[in-house]
Amino acid sequence: MKIARFSVDGMEFHGQVDGRLLRVLKGNPFKRIEVTRASYPLEKVRLLPPTRPVNYWGVGENYPKHVNFRVEELGSAIAERAKKFTPWHKGAGSIVASGDPVVVPPDVDWIEYEGELCIVIGRPAFKVSVDAAKDFIFGYTVSNDIGSGPAWFRADFSLWRVKSTDTFGPIGPWIETEIADPHQLDIIVRVDGREEDRGNTRDMIHNCYEIVSNISQYVTLHPGDMITTGAPGLTRALKPGEVVEVEIPEIGILRNPIAASE
Amino acid sequence: MKIARFSVDGMEFHGQVDGRLLRVLKGNPFKRIEVTRASYPLEKVRLLPPTRPVNYWGVGENYPKHVNFRVEELGSAIAERAKKFTPWHKGAGSIVASGDPVVVPPDVDWIEYEGELCIVIGRPAFKVSVDAAKDFIFGYTVSNDIGSGPAWFRADFSLWRVKSTDTFGPIGPWIETEIADPHQLDIIVRVDGREEDRGNTRDMIHNCYEIVSNISQYVTLHPGDMITTGAPGLTRALKPGEVVEVEIPEIGILRNPIAASE
Repeated sequence: MKIARFSVDGMEFHGQVDGRLLRVLKGNPFKRIEVTRASYPLEKVRLLPPTRPVNYWGVGENYPKHVNFRVEELGSAIAERAKKFTPWHKGAGSIVASGDPVVVPPDVDWIEYEGELCIVIGRPAFKVSVDAAKDFIFGYTVSNDIGSGPAWFRADFSLWRVKSTDTFGPIGPWIETEIADPHQLDIIVRVDGREEDRGNTRDMIHNCYEIVSNISQYVTLHPGDMITTGAPGLTRALKPGEVVEVEIPEIGILRNPIAASE
Repeated sequence: MKIARFSVDGMEFHGQVDGRLLRVLKGNPFKRIEVTRASYPLEKVRLLPPTRPVNYWGVGENYPKHVNFRVEELGSAIAERAKKFTPWHKGAGSIVASGDPVVVPPDVDWIEYEGELCIVIGRPAFKVSVDAAKDFIFGYTVSNDIGSGPAWFRADFSLWRVKSTDTFGPIGPWIETEIADPHQLDIIVRVDGREEDRGNTRDMIHNCYEIVSNISQYVTLHPGDMITTGAPGLTRALKPGEVVEVEIPEIGILRNPIAASE
């Protein structure tokens, strides 16, 4: 089932995506839901981020091609990072929905896309094994893990600006709960309709189950928490006026315009 | 006014602290509240963390005495950090209330206290000036910004374990909304009743208004977001069975027992 969060006339709903229709859901998606008879056409609603997490996690450097790209840009310490598995907190304040603008801060060198598969947690997970991890995953969505160019990465001792500036966390358009194998998914990035990058989740260094298990050894993952699992390939600077799409065909298309700061 | 969050019989309330009594509040503390006629004795309730933030921020190395201590432990790069103002995301999942145990993970070198003043945001703050910052602050509470020893700091590329492991974020006991000058407050740390450290917020490198203004240049601060402003002095390893108190006399005492992992 594809489950969206959306607002209409100031009210918030969960809805089942059924073609161009959103069938209103009653209840809590992480507990029990029921499809009602109410529905809205997709084009009449405003999509919201699929969940409001306690923590939004990032896992960088999780594909060999992307690691090599970052080593060339930032130096070989980045390769160590990939080996050691260091997740980080992507500030939940950065989260925006599909359709929302990503704003380029006035003093950044540039911003760049990272199209990624994003795990959505369904049940509290603490010290779960790799084998059991699957049972704690509610579904998957698409993320664009926007980051700044290297200037802030070199200047700061945390990723607070690099990865967590307002609007740097597009997620959506919705959650797909019926992905049989999350490690066989194409990830396609398009800018203004032109394909820029294409990868497949089979190339992950740490797979989704390892990621959930690893984080849960120290920090409880809560229902609605999300983990973006890394970009498969290369990226480039984005300019105001461009529109970025990240597509995972089994899930949907996350689409965000790039805007200048006012 | 001192405003606590607490639970009784599975229900959650806000309450005004009136001696040993909590007077139940109606409404949203960040909008409009009203004191009701209901009340509970403080000793009959379970305190909850004062807010549920979108982001919980840390500001490390914010007092000269603490910077010197960390330089000796971790090297001179830490001093650069203090000059540059790099806040970081303390995972909101780490937050616990006064009274809750802080659990020592089985494979950590050690854990240590950092008794700190914690800012609570009251209104959305984006690109606010230092002069205006005060108007966006709802009040202040006390935090114990628990961290691991240096092993995880050296091993990881983020602070996800060092600062954000489950239970590493005690905050409370409640919010004081009537602090006239947040830069004249004693911070006292006691372990098992013995005073271990004492500092004063007048020695902050970046003061509360600068911190709020600086973060808000890139990331919106939301009502209920909290910022812990750094430890004034030294720290040491804590052992299971000990009880740590952080007191800011104008606010209250945050008290947490240290527990072994099961």
